[in-house]
Amino acid sequence: VSGGLEIIPVEGLPEITEGTRLGELIGARAELRDGDVLVVSQKVVSKAEGRLRRLAEVAPGEEAVALGRRLGKDPRLVQLVLNESREVLRAERGVLITETRQGLVCANAGVDSSNVPAPETVSLLPEDADASARRIRAELRERAELAVVVSDSIGRPWRLGQAEVAIGCAGLTALDDWRGRPDATGRELTATLIAVADEVAAAADLARDKDSAVPASVVRGLARFVTAEDGAGAAALRRPRADDLFR
Amino acid sequence: VSGGLEIIPVEGLPEITEGTRLGELIGARAELRDGDVLVVSQKVVSKAEGRLRRLAEVAPGEEAVALGRRLGKDPRLVQLVLNESREVLRAERGVLITETRQGLVCANAGVDSSNVPAPETVSLLPEDADASARRIRAELRERAELAVVVSDSIGRPWRLGQAEVAIGCAGLTALDDWRGRPDATGRELTATLIAVADEVAAAADLARDKDSAVPASVVRGLARFVTAEDGAGAAALRRPRADDLFR
Repeated sequence: VSGGLEIIPVEGLPEITEGTRLGELIGARAELRDGDVLVVSQKVVSKAEGRLRRLAEVAPGEEAVALGRRLGKDPRLVQLVLNESREVLRAERGVLITETRQGLVCANAGVDSSNVPAPETVSLLPEDADASARRIRAELRERAELAVVVSDSIGRPWRLGQAEVAIGCAGLTALDDWRGRPDATGRELTATLIAVADEVAAAADLARDKDSAVPASVVRGLARFVTAEDGAGAAALRRPRADDLFR
Repeated sequence: VSGGLEIIPVEGLPEITEGTRLGELIGARAELRDGDVLVVSQKVVSKAEGRLRRLAEVAPGEEAVALGRRLGKDPRLVQLVLNESREVLRAERGVLITETRQGLVCANAGVDSSNVPAPETVSLLPEDADASARRIRAELRERAELAVVVSDSIGRPWRLGQAEVAIGCAGLTALDDWRGRPDATGRELTATLIAVADEVAAAADLARDKDSAVPASVVRGLARFVTAEDGAGAAALRRPRADDLFR
């Protein structure tokens, strides 16, 4: 499509286990082209990186036990959330919202039991999802010059529902900065900084159902945002604390 | 694309003026099919609905003057923002974040001067963007059974950059509710409510540049979310106040 976009689900991937080289696996199954953006869901990245934890193996500390009681959550889950977090933003009404060590603000630090086959087992977010994206990209470099996004769905203040965002990326202009450039009328745009990486993650999510085991999609038509260097990753999307009015 | 998505920019629209029937205009220029989602940017909807205001015609009141001084903003602009708002959430560090009368939380109640051709003139959001979406849809009903989204880009707490969201929609399942349904492993999903309308708005944004005067895109491949009825619109995305931890 001239000027348009295509989003193609990557189908037929097997269940992912620790040590799977995701880039190679996807590269063997998907037709990838220069300028594509490959969006991989957090869950499979976590599985490939061995980030599953059995609750039976977690010994909750005092804080986790108290928080768990207050929120009606399993204290072992709460302990994992605290381990993954550098700050608790809200702990009330059954909701635990933290900032992860990587700087993502979300519920339960992304610790999650959906689409994890083993019982009583949860997945943690990748330790460094930008590094995950760089690794997957490196495995695909011989096939195509593309960008990689690792995505996860997070809740939002004020709005119901979760939307997929980029928790990691490589080779993508995560933020498209229009400040200082002219709009269609020639007037200078003053406040336009577009979260391209998040919009790509959201777009890719639409091409797959949550139950259909489609953990990746290819977004075609965004070559203008694909860069030779890996770049700053999704870290560039972190709003500096000093500039955040909703802590 | 089987199982995939296509996003097609609608090009060649003239400058939109008050009274333009946007649905008819777009219908004459775009090839629309049953099951498509037409995403129209707020700016052209506001123009068609006569929601431009000349700052010279605004007489700021006391509160607007005081707020304007404190925030370094034009008091006439602040007055327009207050007129459009039912609550001020934050007014500090040069930033004014309010809840609009329609229930959208964003900076400056969406009052904005970019892509407005007349000098010293700003656009307000549509008075009721769900109603705008229904009107556009009605104008297109004879061409195709599609859904319509009115989109705008808003800033987010914690994350840098703006992402496009649905401020209005008609004929679309705005929230896809997976709670109670099984995941790929057969386990019940407990917290999965997907903000489809927002993800569609974000996806559509990627198919057009801010300066290229492409105010609409067609998203193809989401017929499963297109409904016969207009439905509850983007109002369904409003998080109830009692359930919002970030006021």
